[in-house]
Amino acid sequence: MASPEAEEPLRRVLAEKQAADPGAAKPEVNAAVETLKALEVEAAVSGGGNGSAEGSRKAFRQAVVNTLERRLFYIPSFKIYRGVAGLYDYGPPGCAVKSNVLAFWRQHFVLEENMLEVDCPCVTPEVVLEASGHVDKFTDLMVKDEKIGTCYRADHLLKDYCKEELEKDLTLSADKAAELKHVLAMLDDFSAKEIGAKIKDYGITAPTTKNTLSDPFPFNLMFQTSIGPSGLLPGYMRPETAQGIFVNFKDLYNYNGRKLPFAAAQIGQAFRNEISPRQGLLRVREFTLAEIEHFVDPEDKSHPKFIDVANLEFLMFPRNEQMTGESAKPVILGEAVSEGIVNNETLGYFIGRVYLFLTCLGINKERLRFRQHLRNEMAHYAADCWDAEIECSYGWIECVGIADRSAYDLRAHSEKSGVPLVAHGKLEPREIEKLVIVPSKKELGLSFKCNQKMVVEALEAMSEKEALEMKDSLESKGEVEFYVRTLGKTVVITKKMVAISIEKKKQHRRVFTPSVIEPSFGIGRIIYCLFEHSFYTRPSKSEDEQLNVFRFPPPVAPIKCTVFPLIKTQEFVDVARNIAKSLTAAGISHIVDTTSTSIGKRYARTDEIGVPFAVTVDSTDSVTIRERDNKEQIRVSIDEVASVVKELADGQSTWSDIMGRFSDHAAAFSPCCCTIQ
Amino acid sequence: MASPEAEEPLRRVLAEKQAADPGAAKPEVNAAVETLKALEVEAAVSGGGNGSAEGSRKAFRQAVVNTLERRLFYIPSFKIYRGVAGLYDYGPPGCAVKSNVLAFWRQHFVLEENMLEVDCPCVTPEVVLEASGHVDKFTDLMVKDEKIGTCYRADHLLKDYCKEELEKDLTLSADKAAELKHVLAMLDDFSAKEIGAKIKDYGITAPTTKNTLSDPFPFNLMFQTSIGPSGLLPGYMRPETAQGIFVNFKDLYNYNGRKLPFAAAQIGQAFRNEISPRQGLLRVREFTLAEIEHFVDPEDKSHPKFIDVANLEFLMFPRNEQMTGESAKPVILGEAVSEGIVNNETLGYFIGRVYLFLTCLGINKERLRFRQHLRNEMAHYAADCWDAEIECSYGWIECVGIADRSAYDLRAHSEKSGVPLVAHGKLEPREIEKLVIVPSKKELGLSFKCNQKMVVEALEAMSEKEALEMKDSLESKGEVEFYVRTLGKTVVITKKMVAISIEKKKQHRRVFTPSVIEPSFGIGRIIYCLFEHSFYTRPSKSEDEQLNVFRFPPPVAPIKCTVFPLIKTQEFVDVARNIAKSLTAAGISHIVDTTSTSIGKRYARTDEIGVPFAVTVDSTDSVTIRERDNKEQIRVSIDEVASVVKELADGQSTWSDIMGRFSDHAAAFSPCCCTIQ
Repeated sequence: MASPEAEEPLRRVLAEKQAADPGAAKPEVNAAVETLKALEVEAAVSGGGNGSAEGSRKAFRQAVVNTLERRLFYIPSFKIYRGVAGLYDYGPPGCAVKSNVLAFWRQHFVLEENMLEVDCPCVTPEVVLEASGHVDKFTDLMVKDEKIGTCYRADHLLKDYCKEELEKDLTLSADKAAELKHVLAMLDDFSAKEIGAKIKDYGITAPTTKNTLSDPFPFNLMFQTSIGPSGLLPGYMRPETAQGIFVNFKDLYNYNGRKLPFAAAQIGQAFRNEISPRQGLLRVREFTLAEIEHFVDPEDKSHPKFIDVANLEFLMFPRNEQMTGESAKPVILGEAVSEGIVNNETLGYFIGRVYLFLTCLGINKERLRFRQHLRNEMAHYAADCWDAEIECSYGWIECVGIADRSAYDLRAHSEKSGVPLVAHGKLEPREIEKLVIVPSKKELGLSFKCNQKMVVEALEAMSEKEALEMKDSLESKGEVEFYVRTLGKTVVITKKMVAISIEKKKQHRRVFTPSVIEPSFGIGRIIYCLFEHSFYTRPSKSEDEQLNVFRFPPPVAPIKCTVFPLIKTQEFVDVARNIAKSLTAAGISHIVDTTSTSIGKRYARTDEIGVPFAVTVDSTDSVTIRERDNKEQIRVSIDEVASVVKELADGQSTWSDIMGRFSDHAAAFSPCCCTIQ
Repeated sequence: MASPEAEEPLRRVLAEKQAADPGAAKPEVNAAVETLKALEVEAAVSGGGNGSAEGSRKAFRQAVVNTLERRLFYIPSFKIYRGVAGLYDYGPPGCAVKSNVLAFWRQHFVLEENMLEVDCPCVTPEVVLEASGHVDKFTDLMVKDEKIGTCYRADHLLKDYCKEELEKDLTLSADKAAELKHVLAMLDDFSAKEIGAKIKDYGITAPTTKNTLSDPFPFNLMFQTSIGPSGLLPGYMRPETAQGIFVNFKDLYNYNGRKLPFAAAQIGQAFRNEISPRQGLLRVREFTLAEIEHFVDPEDKSHPKFIDVANLEFLMFPRNEQMTGESAKPVILGEAVSEGIVNNETLGYFIGRVYLFLTCLGINKERLRFRQHLRNEMAHYAADCWDAEIECSYGWIECVGIADRSAYDLRAHSEKSGVPLVAHGKLEPREIEKLVIVPSKKELGLSFKCNQKMVVEALEAMSEKEALEMKDSLESKGEVEFYVRTLGKTVVITKKMVAISIEKKKQHRRVFTPSVIEPSFGIGRIIYCLFEHSFYTRPSKSEDEQLNVFRFPPPVAPIKCTVFPLIKTQEFVDVARNIAKSLTAAGISHIVDTTSTSIGKRYARTDEIGVPFAVTVDSTDSVTIRERDNKEQIRVSIDEVASVVKELADGQSTWSDIMGRFSDHAAAFSPCCCTIQ
């Protein structure tokens, strides 16, 4: 229904409105923006209103998913107990792909940037997630079937209703259609009350039972638990790994020699208790995140290695293009930064590195775009935010978020914990009027013993207002009660314990809260998109059936090579076993297949899990190695097999390099970007 | 107090009792066994009653832990919020050691044995853990301070009381002392009631408040949560990774071409909500497990590669030696299996592989023993069980369990889920009387549509008794109600739908539940012991201070190499940066230190986190490489640095190999076992 032509006037109206009045009322802009987003998703899924294109997308997805499940790339978890929605296991090939993706992530990000990798627990006490805002705000609105208690996401029900009405009821009045479209557009900004009113108005009932629905109420998406035996310490399974890094900022900054910028990284499980999981591996209740927190001086967001990525050109979808009805277009990254489309060099550097990471893995660069968040999409504190979106059969899917979150997270934890999370910088000396708080360590030590340090820190961390109030009280009353957060109690501070004054001082150093630039990778989503982008079919030799192939780049492939004796003689089987031993010693995953199945079938079986190289033993001193996609073969002596396959599997050499060395046959050029550093 | 001499008579009495009456009353044997175990732990910690030895153990531990915490190997989690007991973060060097240990585990086990690695969620629905027994039995007994609610492990309080009384009260009557020792010995076998009675008898109160304590009650150690929004599907954070493999047995068996033996493996987080965590990294609430489930025909537990480990000789502590008062002694593994001390070849093979794994990591083989479980220590279904125990400052710590669990787990899930988890074997054809159940797929399909398959499977899975009852009912009434577990409901089966008969049949294949041999690795415990075994101090050059060193083998070391310009000239700094680039390209983690600190201090700083190689730039065409432990140096041209360090870091070459190539200096032999396959 939603034709691409419908978008243009809408974008134009929106652009005009913004031009005329940059402060246009939020709801109005929201409405337009959301309509645009809805149209985009629909256009992607439906192929621009072309029903058969949508059908073919679904058929393609079905073919991929069937292969993935049949070959155990993934499995619905706890299947013998009828499973649990939104939980999946990676079976052997999927698990191997995942660990290859993570190994490459470590090489490409952690090693390349000398990041400080940490590993924090999933179980997290409530206080940490209160500070981060998750306890209050990490919610979706839910309604319940009033009779049987089944739960639904309120926005999903309303959205499905509006879409269905618009699709099925061709006699809908223009007014009614406009209203439904408006609702779709406003969905993310509706309050619980507004959604509830719409559900009542439209008479929406529970999908299966047709029972009435409760009013919508917020449901927190964190899995809750209780730490320790008393039941008094509530905890949650972390919804992201980032908080583990923020709370360690002080130690990590010291570890890095008190120098900025530096980045910390973490790979680990995260959890979201989705109300109704959908879309297979894309929206699940437990998933692996890989997150980077790059801490930087807010006054200097340049990046020394930006030059290495400045010439990259790829699809970008800046805010403006989204508002004016254009689509994503190729942009040179250096220009995007110099023109101020991307907020700063460091953000730009990570966008470039993410582009290289994803395309090296095998993501099709034509189906990858970097979409900038619209102003009202971003958190109020964010300076800029870009999503790496990958197109798959479900539409454009957000797989990596790259955000400049300013100083928000460190400030939030400083405030909640009372521990200053700050950095120090040098300054040209200048005279300033400055609040000086000088705690007397000796006096405080006498009174507070081993707690002295925490009292000192709390005194030093006072805001100007707090300090001046304390100064007044000390002068008038001689002592004052003071709450020390890190101790969890109030202490009495006397005049002797602290000197507070306003002085003219030469300032030599700045104390500031660093900004953080956060690239956050949804590993499962990337892997699913990679599965779709790597999948193709081709006719069998006899052309009577279509064979499935995954064209994984060798470093990503779950198994690097197979070893087949051409015929099942003891001699050939022994050679195959010896080759297998040398592959194991070289750290190359492989399969030995000594069944008597035809060689074509054996190839097909392993092409289907994306094994890039097949070694066929047809003599006792040399063997052939066949490449999966172009089916070219080279002849290699038995002693060299392991080292040749290792070179290919590590991405040190491409197939065409190897072809050049081992054969005179003309070889098609097979590009491999995985040697890019 | 517990002198080693005290052990011997006890072991002798025990041995005599067992010899005279192998079926000796369980409590009596238990008591003796537990006394022995208590004595061993005490002997280990106290160094055989020598107070100063215990002191030096504690001092050593303090030195290691101080270094580990100061250099951020690990950090108490959520420290700025005053932490949570039993939760730790791995900081940068600890996280790197952990990922090196896991990479080596994958190479040594998964790749070497072609294991099927899987990756399952931590969130687990209750039904799975009911089947495994964790919901009922994964508990510790707890008591509560009746006034303020603080919780304690009941056995810990009772144990601490008995030990203190025995230690402090030298006037204790012989009877009283014997009673307290008996209690210590029986602790693990006491019921809640018995422990409660003892606590009352002895007047034990809450340690800090001296308030009275509640009766002991079982506290389940799993973190509980709720899956989905309804609150109706209880779940737990998995206490081990093994169940994820068992429930996938059927798919994995098919994936392996329906052949036995095969092994599946999983690395992942596991959770135990300890009542009162103790001993730093050794008893924590969240930890990484690496588990292998090797499925094998119970009638053939031979292993083709056993010969590769049969000649290994290391400390073993069989059941008999524990009972007769001897200590662990070197045993040749092949002999232990052929003499029946180790139950079977496959179990023996894994014991040998675990030995190689741990010693390659850097565990001291003199402080590693394999202790067999005593008969009453093992689960009733286990065929045999050995723990790899590593000695550290806390005593002998169980780090790997290697158990032959027979068919217990697969049977438990078969029964609970109704899905048969079995394997098939060939047989010499023989005539047997056999129950034959032939479901009519056509009739069942007509009645049950898409549920047909589950009904067919449930009918085929009936026990002989169930099938004969159904046969009777069908003959008398024509139909029968039948509960299908996988559907969660009762269906009506009519005569047409299934034929049940007893026939004489030639049997060509066996259907059986495989046995499982399970090596289970506590990664955090292994790493902590590795830290202790790798730590040493040596005097600084000026001999005025002791410097800390971790002697990690290169493949385990968190950072493989440092690069220092000898003096801070632009020329040398540029060379250092170029070397750093080539190291990054080769995948070698490294640190560049261009501070003006003295070279000795820079060495000391990196020795303390176990960096094995230091590259010093003292010219523009060649550099020196220094080895951490023997401090020998070689001179290498700049072009070769990365490849030489890579060879060393991967464990392909030892330092002495390299010394031979690059220098005429006599090199001490530095053994490296990490090239062992």
